[in-house]
Amino acid sequence: MKKLSLLLLLCLAAQGSHAQAQVQPRNIIFMIGDGMGPAYTSGYRYFVDNPETEAVDLTVFDRLLVGTASTYPDDDTYVTDSAASATALATGVKSFNGAIGVDTEQKPLQSLLKHAKRLGKNTALVVTSELNHATPASFVAHNKSRRNKDAIANDFIDIRINGRPTVDLMLGGGQQYFQRSDRDILQEFRDLGYQTATELSQLHNITSMPAIGIFADKGLTRAIDSDTPLRLSQMTSAALALLKKDSTEPGFFLMIEGSQIDWCGHANDIACAMREMDDFAHSIQIVEKFVEENPDTLLVITADHSTGGLSLAADKEYLWRTEVIAQQQHSLAAFSRNLHKDADVEKSWRENFGYPLQAQDLVALKEGMTTPDNTYDMVLKLSSRYSNTGWTTHGHDAVDVQVFATGSGSDLFRGFQDNTDISKKILQLMEGEPRP
Amino acid sequence: MKKLSLLLLLCLAAQGSHAQAQVQPRNIIFMIGDGMGPAYTSGYRYFVDNPETEAVDLTVFDRLLVGTASTYPDDDTYVTDSAASATALATGVKSFNGAIGVDTEQKPLQSLLKHAKRLGKNTALVVTSELNHATPASFVAHNKSRRNKDAIANDFIDIRINGRPTVDLMLGGGQQYFQRSDRDILQEFRDLGYQTATELSQLHNITSMPAIGIFADKGLTRAIDSDTPLRLSQMTSAALALLKKDSTEPGFFLMIEGSQIDWCGHANDIACAMREMDDFAHSIQIVEKFVEENPDTLLVITADHSTGGLSLAADKEYLWRTEVIAQQQHSLAAFSRNLHKDADVEKSWRENFGYPLQAQDLVALKEGMTTPDNTYDMVLKLSSRYSNTGWTTHGHDAVDVQVFATGSGSDLFRGFQDNTDISKKILQLMEGEPRP
Repeated sequence: MKKLSLLLLLCLAAQGSHAQAQVQPRNIIFMIGDGMGPAYTSGYRYFVDNPETEAVDLTVFDRLLVGTASTYPDDDTYVTDSAASATALATGVKSFNGAIGVDTEQKPLQSLLKHAKRLGKNTALVVTSELNHATPASFVAHNKSRRNKDAIANDFIDIRINGRPTVDLMLGGGQQYFQRSDRDILQEFRDLGYQTATELSQLHNITSMPAIGIFADKGLTRAIDSDTPLRLSQMTSAALALLKKDSTEPGFFLMIEGSQIDWCGHANDIACAMREMDDFAHSIQIVEKFVEENPDTLLVITADHSTGGLSLAADKEYLWRTEVIAQQQHSLAAFSRNLHKDADVEKSWRENFGYPLQAQDLVALKEGMTTPDNTYDMVLKLSSRYSNTGWTTHGHDAVDVQVFATGSGSDLFRGFQDNTDISKKILQLMEGEPRP
Repeated sequence: MKKLSLLLLLCLAAQGSHAQAQVQPRNIIFMIGDGMGPAYTSGYRYFVDNPETEAVDLTVFDRLLVGTASTYPDDDTYVTDSAASATALATGVKSFNGAIGVDTEQKPLQSLLKHAKRLGKNTALVVTSELNHATPASFVAHNKSRRNKDAIANDFIDIRINGRPTVDLMLGGGQQYFQRSDRDILQEFRDLGYQTATELSQLHNITSMPAIGIFADKGLTRAIDSDTPLRLSQMTSAALALLKKDSTEPGFFLMIEGSQIDWCGHANDIACAMREMDDFAHSIQIVEKFVEENPDTLLVITADHSTGGLSLAADKEYLWRTEVIAQQQHSLAAFSRNLHKDADVEKSWRENFGYPLQAQDLVALKEGMTTPDNTYDMVLKLSSRYSNTGWTTHGHDAVDVQVFATGSGSDLFRGFQDNTDISKKILQLMEGEPRP
């Protein structure tokens, strides 16, 4: 009888673990690759592949892929901008392009970050854009237009929960908005007891929360142009250490954004984009390790939308030349800015791209360098041809994005979902509602 | 004691159903959307959406999405053609671009279809291309080059298992290859007892297997140009009815291909592609219903690769005009062929596309109609602009494709996998190997 009872108990316990009637991760890490459509993650695998070996290794994206998501806004188009999509991801409600944390009637929407704060969790934002750029802004501020950047920055300090600002740790850019002539928000944070840092090299000076690090005038330097290309990874490590150190029972909510994948996509600069993807991939691996060591953590990764209409191959050629992309030294923007008519254009090209221009292309480039914009367009056209990368737009496109997840509750994100569903599922897990 | 034993038994049974130690679907249906990258399925959802209503309904693709797959070939490129990818999907082994059912040493590879035949299953191929086109060919033939179309057609009758051809039911195109002056393969099939049909309208004349229906000289007419745009759906219904009617204990293996999504993609004709997607979606829904009624069936759907570098939006405009695409009456190819200099170009455009050309575009079109190719390029350029559809190539691109599945064993296809993994998993399920 006793033996049967024990066996029954063991069996029921096993059933219980299958059923997982209530999953409630303490820590929630939401990572967003801005502009990171499927071509970016597929491309990244090939970009880091060693073409000398037959095997093509899996990336962290491949390991964590669980589903896909639609991104359309509540607007007269299927093509979202970052504000509408960030609002959808942050609040579970679709809105119009340009909307920051407000619905189509311009009423404020509560974000996952604020729900987390009300549950007593520590909250954090880590980005490579300015902190008040569309994506992080949608977790904190409320504004009918992403362009009202000063007002959005004000919301970071003015909006309170239990008398305190809503974000305990912020790392990113935006000194232009947080240290203004009319208002020094950074100082106001200091007055509230926030540690601060204004250079990435001083990141280690932040020893506990609350804290805010603003490391650039606007966005941080592009990875490809930076002395510290793995800056998002650095900030991610620092953030996790601080959140672990000042750990509270309710845990934390952390949003990390690879903000500049999108910026490189807008510029149609594939090498720029792949270096941002590299920094983002390293950041994910750091978080993946944290999840392994802290299993009551959920990690969800997605993109807000795709950018540029990027394609891996173009012009009827069945090739995508990653070795060409890997050699590019600086962003197309930086290279073009420095390319002057009287310089040795041929030498400059070879130094930046690692290969010589064909004779007719050199002629075309020199003739095309009439204005800065024309110079950029010619540099873009030629370099894209040499890598055989395709671009259709300097804006966004409406292809579905991918969803990646690991940790506690991650299987909830499998299959197809709308971008608002991702947010609703995270909220559901945060509030510990029984699974349907 | 008795009560405890009963409870224990019930608990163990429930545990067993969770474990699913051995899943072995009787029927396997493998559907391939040739060229159907993520932009095609995302685009299809918006194409069939009613822009008057706020809701954007889910498509069958959304319902069945389970994962993604890499498509790179075993060749000096990351960009596959249909032969290498079909070989990977059919045999579980990657090969070089152009390879039909052979490995990189040109040795023959056994396909899922042949494994199924050896297990005693009925086998069937349903396509809108010629039957000996790269994708169906890779399930039947062995050839170092997809271009050897006559030799590939010969394999359909010459390759035998237990003295019989390997495919019991074939529906598609290719009279040019199966009814040649040097060899009448269709007659040879008749001599072996195969029922035959040579027009889609005679499909119902096929009352039992074995049977072969060849309904066009090469591929069937494009859906957008056809009086029977849902021809793949019709052939799918007919095939399922025949397979059900002549059902054997081991079940069947059926490969269905939406062959011409890719052809429209190569042509950069978005309306053409969306009509092919519509036929493919309807075919999937017919199969989905079959799976519901016959639960010992596995349905797996994927694409061999993406085509055209299609993007939903272009030229920095955040719009993708589906209402423009929906009005197009004929394929760009058919329209361009019929557009002559002395015709009323303005009227012809309005009749085909449903909107008037702007004045400067009309001028550009008339001036550009110097040769048939130039006429096509101009028609393509203008019509793409009006719908704001982006294309980067008349060839393929290397973005990962999506994987969809339902039925017995479908959860094996979740998450990221290589295209060869899809094939290996199907084989594993066919052979009833215990799950790892």
